[in-house]
Amino acid sequence: MIIIMRPKVNDAEVNAVIQKLESLGLQANVSRGVERTVIGAIGEDRHLHQPVLKAMPGVSDVVPIVKPYKIVARESHPENTVIDINGILLGGNTIQVIGGPCSVETQPQMDLSAEGVAAAGCRLMRGGAFKPRTSPYAFQGAGLEGLSMFRQAAKAHNLPIVTELMDVRMLDSFLEHGVEVIQVGTRNMQNFDLLKELGKVHVPVILKRGLCATISEWLMSAEYIAAGGNHQIILCERGVRSFETAYRNMLDVTAIPVLKRETHLPVIVDPSHAGGKAWLVPALAKAAIAAGADGLLVEMHPTPCEAWCDADQALTPTELQTLMVELRALANAMGRDL
Amino acid sequence: MIIIMRPKVNDAEVNAVIQKLESLGLQANVSRGVERTVIGAIGEDRHLHQPVLKAMPGVSDVVPIVKPYKIVARESHPENTVIDINGILLGGNTIQVIGGPCSVETQPQMDLSAEGVAAAGCRLMRGGAFKPRTSPYAFQGAGLEGLSMFRQAAKAHNLPIVTELMDVRMLDSFLEHGVEVIQVGTRNMQNFDLLKELGKVHVPVILKRGLCATISEWLMSAEYIAAGGNHQIILCERGVRSFETAYRNMLDVTAIPVLKRETHLPVIVDPSHAGGKAWLVPALAKAAIAAGADGLLVEMHPTPCEAWCDADQALTPTELQTLMVELRALANAMGRDL
Amino acid sequence: MIIIMRPKVNDAEVNAVIQKLESLGLQANVSRGVERTVIGAIGEDRHLHQPVLKAMPGVSDVVPIVKPYKIVARESHPENTVIDINGILLGGNTIQVIGGPCSVETQPQMDLSAEGVAAAGCRLMRGGAFKPRTSPYAFQGAGLEGLSMFRQAAKAHNLPIVTELMDVRMLDSFLEHGVEVIQVGTRNMQNFDLLKELGKVHVPVILKRGLCATISEWLMSAEYIAAGGNHQIILCERGVRSFETAYRNMLDVTAIPVLKRETHLPVIVDPSHAGGKAWLVPALAKAAIAAGADGLLVEMHPTPCEAWCDADQALTPTELQTLMVELRALANAMGRDL
Amino acid sequence: MIIIMRPKVNDAEVNAVIQKLESLGLQANVSRGVERTVIGAIGEDRHLHQPVLKAMPGVSDVVPIVKPYKIVARESHPENTVIDINGILLGGNTIQVIGGPCSVETQPQMDLSAEGVAAAGCRLMRGGAFKPRTSPYAFQGAGLEGLSMFRQAAKAHNLPIVTELMDVRMLDSFLEHGVEVIQVGTRNMQNFDLLKELGKVHVPVILKRGLCATISEWLMSAEYIAAGGNHQIILCERGVRSFETAYRNMLDVTAIPVLKRETHLPVIVDPSHAGGKAWLVPALAKAAIAAGADGLLVEMHPTPCEAWCDADQALTPTELQTLMVELRALANAMGRDL
Repeated sequence: MIIIMRPKVNDAEVNAVIQKLESLGLQANVSRGVERTVIGAIGEDRHLHQPVLKAMPGVSDVVPIVKPYKIVARESHPENTVIDINGILLGGNTIQVIGGPCSVETQPQMDLSAEGVAAAGCRLMRGGAFKPRTSPYAFQGAGLEGLSMFRQAAKAHNLPIVTELMDVRMLDSFLEHGVEVIQVGTRNMQNFDLLKELGKVHVPVILKRGLCATISEWLMSAEYIAAGGNHQIILCERGVRSFETAYRNMLDVTAIPVLKRETHLPVIVDPSHAGGKAWLVPALAKAAIAAGADGLLVEMHPTPCEAWCDADQALTPTELQTLMVELRALANAMGRDL
Repeated sequence: MIIIMRPKVNDAEVNAVIQKLESLGLQANVSRGVERTVIGAIGEDRHLHQPVLKAMPGVSDVVPIVKPYKIVARESHPENTVIDINGILLGGNTIQVIGGPCSVETQPQMDLSAEGVAAAGCRLMRGGAFKPRTSPYAFQGAGLEGLSMFRQAAKAHNLPIVTELMDVRMLDSFLEHGVEVIQVGTRNMQNFDLLKELGKVHVPVILKRGLCATISEWLMSAEYIAAGGNHQIILCERGVRSFETAYRNMLDVTAIPVLKRETHLPVIVDPSHAGGKAWLVPALAKAAIAAGADGLLVEMHPTPCEAWCDADQALTPTELQTLMVELRALANAMGRDL
Repeated sequence: MIIIMRPKVNDAEVNAVIQKLESLGLQANVSRGVERTVIGAIGEDRHLHQPVLKAMPGVSDVVPIVKPYKIVARESHPENTVIDINGILLGGNTIQVIGGPCSVETQPQMDLSAEGVAAAGCRLMRGGAFKPRTSPYAFQGAGLEGLSMFRQAAKAHNLPIVTELMDVRMLDSFLEHGVEVIQVGTRNMQNFDLLKELGKVHVPVILKRGLCATISEWLMSAEYIAAGGNHQIILCERGVRSFETAYRNMLDVTAIPVLKRETHLPVIVDPSHAGGKAWLVPALAKAAIAAGADGLLVEMHPTPCEAWCDADQALTPTELQTLMVELRALANAMGRDL
Repeated sequence: MIIIMRPKVNDAEVNAVIQKLESLGLQANVSRGVERTVIGAIGEDRHLHQPVLKAMPGVSDVVPIVKPYKIVARESHPENTVIDINGILLGGNTIQVIGGPCSVETQPQMDLSAEGVAAAGCRLMRGGAFKPRTSPYAFQGAGLEGLSMFRQAAKAHNLPIVTELMDVRMLDSFLEHGVEVIQVGTRNMQNFDLLKELGKVHVPVILKRGLCATISEWLMSAEYIAAGGNHQIILCERGVRSFETAYRNMLDVTAIPVLKRETHLPVIVDPSHAGGKAWLVPALAKAAIAAGADGLLVEMHPTPCEAWCDADQALTPTELQTLMVELRALANAMGRDL
């Protein structure tokens, strides 16, 4: 951590910073330049003291030089983490496409969905039984009954299920239903009490990026889960909020190579929620694979126009099949399987 | 709701939309222009069907014309809502400044804080016992013990307390401690399960704006609380995320007059978290009052440099006193008290 | 264009809007709903009158339903525009990679650059003789002398040259030097006088997206050039400003399929300026191709560490060669050449 | 400037950086920490070398510690700059409100406007003869004839005129017409050739902030003008682009105190273009004054509904008069005149 002092700082101010650092158990390295004096702080957990130092007289800025995340950092674990979901590997050379509807509606809808997902060659299935909706008057999900419908449909095709947990009080029910992958949604990326509970279980977690979370904040949320002991974390980029109104969210494709450099965790992408339009999904899915993503979350509905939620962004089963063929060609050109 | 059809749409597509509207219990009003055909949908809860209609063949766009929020809309309740907090009115002609430290640390720190808050003429006190921290390794708050310290300090000066609830499982404890105003933080603005529970209690709620929430989304979150039966909601603007790095968040001062037009709920501003620097607080606090805010949340700490959290943004007790004098002059020039 | 009236609007207000529309030569179609009255405006160039109508008493909102761009719209010209640059086609099935240094420095640097560009298999060369620099104290470009150095180097490998025009007063010099493609930089996307002059010449123009320009504004800037008679316009996505600080700009990969749907003009991507780091270029270049881009602008410098500008984002000649091989595999998997 | 090396950097990499610094005429101060080595660079114009150093092997990040702007920095000129515009002072204790229409339309419109501006007590008048319009098909301004109309109308009330220069080729005409204050619009904030020419004249310049320009970039654009010798620069905040759609731009009120700390130049605010709605102007104008602005640019039109441009954001002459009374009360409460 580097403390940059203001121009014309006096000795008393410099000394006060040095004493403060020493009282925090850190060492100070003072460098007096032509215009500025700069103090380096050496020792453990320096970044935690940043605000205190910023508040001291004569201090202009405090610059951290070590990343605040540890367990999830590639620096501390150079090899890729590969997560085993009932024998299906995510984070390795094979790209996984997780298909399924936005929300669980009825048993027939889920049965048709599971059939479509399996027919397209996807090995994991998604579907929401608890839905975070902007409006209190919109469909809030089929709840636990939905989980049972989902499980029954997926079982017929041997598909592990991925579903969102919104309320920490429902975690036990998720465990009882044997949910294979628990998803933390965009709006809960910094629901720290939820993250702490997920740190205590032994179930893989998909952690979606917050609507305007920085990559660093996102990794810190992953660190919350990891700090509890659960290292099976999958990061999911799903578009961020921007000024552009031509589509729903701006897919941050640059986040993929940045994450691959910063962390050893697998990175997947949700092109459906990013663009918010079915016709955008193929281009965004391809871009994600080309940029190095380890998987995709793709919305598919047996009859999109009838969907109870996000109807205009789901692919049909046929469209998903076509997309899988195109993605496989792309993955092969990248030296990967799909 | 208006459905705009694509150029060169055919009759079958137009008729399908009309039939869909009728099946949803809505009426269709068709207007064929030179280049475009436009269909108006008339009836209740139209906006819920927007995605389904957007997904239909031939549809170019669907434009809602009625606001999605109801209870919190000024259209439905033209008078300002004034909230009575133990006899202190928020939302009326008197501007309320809620002062206090970012987090509860120790009993002496809270006693000194309460003294400073009362001495400055503030009538409500803030302080966090549960802290949402980006890092799992940072101080997470003093917890329930902190609540007790806070209560004891505030009682001596007869100050109602404002404190943040992060975890829905702690709500009963907050009620037992008689917390006068429960704060929902930025990261929980769309924690819908938490909002639903707060809709069931009879305690005023400060709902902070999400880091990049639109005003409409924010009002929809307030609607979640209101829909449960709790109409005592205070909206708190605290800066939004932007591209600018010269300060922490961008205070959206324009949100104040927009909210005053859209909703009858009181609007307050947190200049401390917005700017992230103590020296910015006076200018932002004044701008908020001048733009029409009903109150402020201002951080004050007896010894800011020693604060365990956000040390560089707290005012000293003396700075708070000076600010209150300046704000009172401004409020009077606006025809209000403080 | 649809005029949405406020709730409880009165007849006088509705009639005033109708009369105003008729005075502008438009027809009015009135639809009275349960809660709102909506007036459709039918006729030419309606969108130009939007602000006047918005200002009228009783009007809540005015929604345009026809796109404001015409010549550049795919609606008006369904086939892709393919631009012929000295026999090299851009916008067809073959993807073009335009390589070269950020700025023209010396003749040897340009000679080595041209050699590297040609050796990698690129068919067009880029280089800036006039540089838009944030600081007045930074290197401002080699100027006209730089153009001559660039021409000489490119000629040896028969490479058409792409270079940026900043000042409208330099246009004649660019024409005299026979610049094959004139680039309009990000900061000049809405320099309308410059765009108007480029509308009068018969030279292909690369129009870079403004730092936070919407896709619609960008197409309107293209329309400025097209309206003057020059339809040889290439749109270049180069990242937009965002809140993320882990890299320079956020590459808006979603803009590619959106542009492909909205306009018939070719779309290229600049992965070098977007990410701002050489190590990000391969992932972003691949994502751009996968999303459907027709070409790339890639920075290469014979000795990046010695570059006078943006040293940390240029590839070496060897890195460019490797990238071209990888991109060709990807293009082939997409059914395209490169 | 501080160069932060990667973890596990080797001696050769550290030595290469030291040699590079020395070859640039800078001194190196090396500090080896537990996890990281950090090198301080001491000497002149360090920041210009930032990209070269970032590109070197082993370098993780390069942090500048001195601001890149010099002439406009308050560090170099602690007193406020006060600009004398024909005897009217801007930047001193008296707040100046510059009123007038968005664009010059006709002589009677300008005569009525000037009358309204003077009657409200404003001492300077604004109006655009050359208009930057997103669409090539929208009204582009009355041009030089407009300038003459403007001058004639303003002269009758002894009002200095403020008008926008878009095209560097028109500068001589502006000088011939004796324009008292030349405005550089948002879209031209980084039109560096225009800024350089304005550095050579002796006319005050209003430099509007770019649509998503950082405060630092904005000050660098001011530095372009100042570096040429013209130090009469007024910065105008006019709202920045954001994700919010409830109004046009987000007024960055925090920029006001930040600028007041960073620079000695006067700061004014344009509440009309920021909000884009006449009904928002009073609240935003008051917030700007309260935050410390030295002046305002306010749109007024004798008959707003008939305006040829931005009709929904202009105040009527009566509304401007009322606003001036309210602003004066506020200014007095702040210890200033208006």
